[in-house]
Amino acid sequence: MEPYESRLVEWLKKNQARGTSLLQKLVQEGSTRGNESSAQAVVIEKCRELGLILDIWEIGNKQLLSHPYFCSDRKVFEGNPNVVGILKGKGGGRSIILNSHIDVVPEGDRNNWLDDPFSGKVKDGKLYGRGSTDMKGGTAALLLALEAIRASDITLKGDVIFESVIEEESGGAGTLATLLRGYTADAAIIPEPTNLKLFPKQQGSMWFRISVTGKSAHGGTRYEGTSAIEKAMQVIEQLQSLEKKRNSRIDDPLYEHIKIPIPINVGKINSGSWPSSVPDLAIIEGRMGVAPNETMENAQTEMETALLALQQLDSWFNLHPPTIEWFGGRWLPGNLSIEHPLIQVVKDRYASVVNSQAVIEASPWGTDGGILSQVGHIPVLVFGPGVTEVAHDANEYIHLKDVYLVAEIIALSIIRWCGIDH
Amino acid sequence: MEPYESRLVEWLKKNQARGTSLLQKLVQEGSTRGNESSAQAVVIEKCRELGLILDIWEIGNKQLLSHPYFCSDRKVFEGNPNVVGILKGKGGGRSIILNSHIDVVPEGDRNNWLDDPFSGKVKDGKLYGRGSTDMKGGTAALLLALEAIRASDITLKGDVIFESVIEEESGGAGTLATLLRGYTADAAIIPEPTNLKLFPKQQGSMWFRISVTGKSAHGGTRYEGTSAIEKAMQVIEQLQSLEKKRNSRIDDPLYEHIKIPIPINVGKINSGSWPSSVPDLAIIEGRMGVAPNETMENAQTEMETALLALQQLDSWFNLHPPTIEWFGGRWLPGNLSIEHPLIQVVKDRYASVVNSQAVIEASPWGTDGGILSQVGHIPVLVFGPGVTEVAHDANEYIHLKDVYLVAEIIALSIIRWCGIDH
Repeated sequence: MEPYESRLVEWLKKNQARGTSLLQKLVQEGSTRGNESSAQAVVIEKCRELGLILDIWEIGNKQLLSHPYFCSDRKVFEGNPNVVGILKGKGGGRSIILNSHIDVVPEGDRNNWLDDPFSGKVKDGKLYGRGSTDMKGGTAALLLALEAIRASDITLKGDVIFESVIEEESGGAGTLATLLRGYTADAAIIPEPTNLKLFPKQQGSMWFRISVTGKSAHGGTRYEGTSAIEKAMQVIEQLQSLEKKRNSRIDDPLYEHIKIPIPINVGKINSGSWPSSVPDLAIIEGRMGVAPNETMENAQTEMETALLALQQLDSWFNLHPPTIEWFGGRWLPGNLSIEHPLIQVVKDRYASVVNSQAVIEASPWGTDGGILSQVGHIPVLVFGPGVTEVAHDANEYIHLKDVYLVAEIIALSIIRWCGIDH
Repeated sequence: MEPYESRLVEWLKKNQARGTSLLQKLVQEGSTRGNESSAQAVVIEKCRELGLILDIWEIGNKQLLSHPYFCSDRKVFEGNPNVVGILKGKGGGRSIILNSHIDVVPEGDRNNWLDDPFSGKVKDGKLYGRGSTDMKGGTAALLLALEAIRASDITLKGDVIFESVIEEESGGAGTLATLLRGYTADAAIIPEPTNLKLFPKQQGSMWFRISVTGKSAHGGTRYEGTSAIEKAMQVIEQLQSLEKKRNSRIDDPLYEHIKIPIPINVGKINSGSWPSSVPDLAIIEGRMGVAPNETMENAQTEMETALLALQQLDSWFNLHPPTIEWFGGRWLPGNLSIEHPLIQVVKDRYASVVNSQAVIEASPWGTDGGILSQVGHIPVLVFGPGVTEVAHDANEYIHLKDVYLVAEIIALSIIRWCGIDH
């Protein structure tokens, strides 16, 4: 380890409390959708302290709203800005984007929480609260890494572009807006909760809604009607076959230990309004997983084709074809080669800090990395503290030592990636 | 035909307009649940005019509410009385109950109606409006029959007990209350819309709600959870097998032409609240048909046993057995032998009036006849004007000539059944 690296590691050891305090403040400013401004204020304050060049703006211009990958159920984002803080390099090095989202999912039923959902309480090395894992722990790790670099008097060659975006949980409009504003780099790291695994590939996904038609009748003469529920069951079986077919194609070794790499999840069904009537409409909603190496459009076409094929199985579907709508959430897949230099750098720094080999896997969920890579053509690695199991649950927490570890690995990786000016 | 019968038929021919006018008034007093009083006032007025002994009372006493066959989601029925009108016989004859319900189902979306749902409009021999078929046409036919008997100076030997009850559409509490108040007879006719067919047997039915448990997970790792929707599909398949098994047992020739004599209808399913989550609960609601010769309790036990049997098919159900609840609607089956003298009388009078043989069938739905027969042990025939296809629909109507026909057949049947005092 170089002397400046040792200095940095030493500083981090002594200043873990700074990371904890920052994370606590971030969690305490509950930033559910539409309420991100006060948590962004904490970010802005820290960026100012670090001397970053700040860009704070409200997203939602025409260019964004009309972009083919703009995905949101709202068009006005006033009052809750995106924040970008730039640590300008001396020049001559590779640049990097550090992207994290500030929005958190709702806290759900407060009765399921032992403490206030936004307490930020620390107990037994864990920090509790909505967003602690997803993904303010990551945000804190990034800012702590930058603070360590600054505090250790290290001057980088490449630029570091720190991004604190809104709207990740609702389709990624915040990250898309950073691209449209011109922010790009030679690579990006997103510290979503990977439990310190390296995720060069991420499953993309999108939501679908299928409407299945039946014919109503009185339940006592149900044979005079056609049950939309029974027809919906055939549709679901068709989706199950499609899932099997799609997954049998996946041969990427990163998916070796994953039971269903790209699942088709039927998350919702609603049909009928009266127990003794034959229902004439069933609505199915679900999430289709998208493989790292396929496009959203191809995946959509494949499902639409499978629904059409139902007409060969049952003549009912000839006259009453199920209709499909792609609505709501959409997350592009990520697909970085494990040979990419960024992976090599982080893997190497991981090994030196943790003293063991990093696990490299494909993630079962998409991140804003899909937008950075597919729209922005930026190589993206997802790597961060925390485990997804607790992410959207009550009593969400994060192990603080993982936050410090990630801060250290990312700080050392940035130095290697961007290069330093001696 | 006896001279007094000819007199009666003659009177009816001349006084059809009286029946039409009565039916019109009944339909115009829309009597959805809880709003039956003004239509009952029309009934009461007619009963007074006919010199019937009136009994008007609000149902809902302790005895009713605690009766094992009391089935209602409310306990207070104030302001909307049951009405009974008795035409006392001279003695020495068989008595008969004429039962019809005054409550009608809601009109639904008014936009689907060409006229006001309670217009009572007459056009091309049809009278339109909610309740015209189900079953104010029947009520009007009964009262017209009684009026014809009175107008023809016929004195009956047996008593005629005319009942205009509430709550048929919601579980039969009105008819149950007549039994508890002491009203019984040697037989009963219920002029529900049978399209002039004779229904000595009626399919009973009851509602069920099955809760199926899964295990939630993120849709991207759906294999970590267990889909309540997929488990519910297994439950529905089990219900389909049970339906097949139950119907294979039915060998009553009255069911010869009925595809599924006692269907199990799954009318509703609701599961999940988020497209990209694995749902952990599915709720199925439906209606179980009950055969004329079986008890509600046996049918319930058979379904509960079928659900238990799922545990042999799939170990998931061992730890998470689906639970069943019998809620809401419950209609007891009716089961009168086609050899019963009442059937013979009505069949015979039908033939003489219509000049063809009456069709005798089993009905695909229950009526208050189930309560009269199973609780009151009264032989019941269901026979009336109108077709069920229009019963609960927009633009409900009835062919007026069928109302007059039924009035004539029932009046002549009453004379034969009760006997007359020459």
